[in-house]
Amino acid sequence: MVLMLGNCMVDYEGRASSKLDWGERLLIVKADGSVMIHRPTGYEPVNWQPPGCAFQVELSGGMLKIRAVRFHPHEVLNIYFNRVLHLLAADLEDRGEFALYVTELDMQKALLLAPELFEEGFKPISAEKDVGESGFIDILGEDSEGNLVVIEIKRNPAGKDAVTQLERYVKALREKTGKPVRGVIVAPDIRREAHSLLAALKLEFKPLSPKKCYEVLKAGREAKLSDFV
Amino acid sequence: MVLMLGNCMVDYEGRASSKLDWGERLLIVKADGSVMIHRPTGYEPVNWQPPGCAFQVELSGGMLKIRAVRFHPHEVLNIYFNRVLHLLAADLEDRGEFALYVTELDMQKALLLAPELFEEGFKPISAEKDVGESGFIDILGEDSEGNLVVIEIKRNPAGKDAVTQLERYVKALREKTGKPVRGVIVAPDIRREAHSLLAALKLEFKPLSPKKCYEVLKAGREAKLSDFV
Repeated sequence: MVLMLGNCMVDYEGRASSKLDWGERLLIVKADGSVMIHRPTGYEPVNWQPPGCAFQVELSGGMLKIRAVRFHPHEVLNIYFNRVLHLLAADLEDRGEFALYVTELDMQKALLLAPELFEEGFKPISAEKDVGESGFIDILGEDSEGNLVVIEIKRNPAGKDAVTQLERYVKALREKTGKPVRGVIVAPDIRREAHSLLAALKLEFKPLSPKKCYEVLKAGREAKLSDFV
Repeated sequence: MVLMLGNCMVDYEGRASSKLDWGERLLIVKADGSVMIHRPTGYEPVNWQPPGCAFQVELSGGMLKIRAVRFHPHEVLNIYFNRVLHLLAADLEDRGEFALYVTELDMQKALLLAPELFEEGFKPISAEKDVGESGFIDILGEDSEGNLVVIEIKRNPAGKDAVTQLERYVKALREKTGKPVRGVIVAPDIRREAHSLLAALKLEFKPLSPKKCYEVLKAGREAKLSDFV
């Protein structure tokens, strides 16, 4: 990994383009060919390229020019340094495992933050809705056609218990409202015997990974905040 | 800005939680209280906190423990270093302007990549659709209720010309299909006189910033790629 702190100017030309005027920043170039340029504030890089870039470095007009090119799609990042404050290169060894712990409650929050994870046009109405003796519905909502949807969330591959639980909620809600109600299990996966039962009861399954939920939760809060700022 | 390269372990506890086992990484702490931990590969940080964190640093059990706490929502990032390879602190000055250049074609591409930018349930059918003598429709699509939608994209605040252009496309398409057709101008803003004309013709306006399009184009490609890998 190469870290360079210095006064630079950055041009990007790709699907869109950008120009960053002179200022002191951090340049990170990783061994996989990814690039990030960080300003003194903000957790997001102002410019970046994903892994796989090809690099050209040259001295031109008293400036150090670093060119990072990506080919598919074609994107070019040109970084010009007229002053280098610090330069540091390190060969890092990292085999550590990254483990995510996402609970069913976390998955519920992610779906409420980003209902399109479930399906386009889905609108949550309530969470933890009480359906009498049957228990609590994880998420109750309405699909784009106006049908009521009961979502039962499981953190692990769903088994038959989840299906019978869902069936109970759907039945209770159909009786209560007299309307058609869709019942859907949302989980990373579903067991084979549970899937057969699900099909027989005309219920549905939608896969959703804890990782996707984690990303939505980490990123979603920012979007939420910026909506109000 | 503080940069630390070393062998570390990271725990995160917030809306979800994560644990990153020991390995050599780059820690970035910025003056605004944002934090990023970068592994040797990938352009995205493995862990991060947005600006505004409070920090506690202590030596405990032979380890350097850095605790970055965010309060709303409550999130705690604990970073433990048992070996520091490099430590670098720099006071960076950066007043450079960041300018985005996003063309109407870029905005069109962004809408095709992320149709929900327009509205939920929107499905693009074609881009640059020829409507005979009237010209070319930027994006033709279908909304969640099955109505045809004609989108006219403008990079700058839309004027009356854009409205009459859109009206021409909508009219041509209504005559051709015999169906109701929505006409919508998508632009960063709309001029007052154009808005009056728009309302009189029962056409619509949706604001869309070039910055949002830029973000979608930069990020969207990755999502696209990963869909197929």
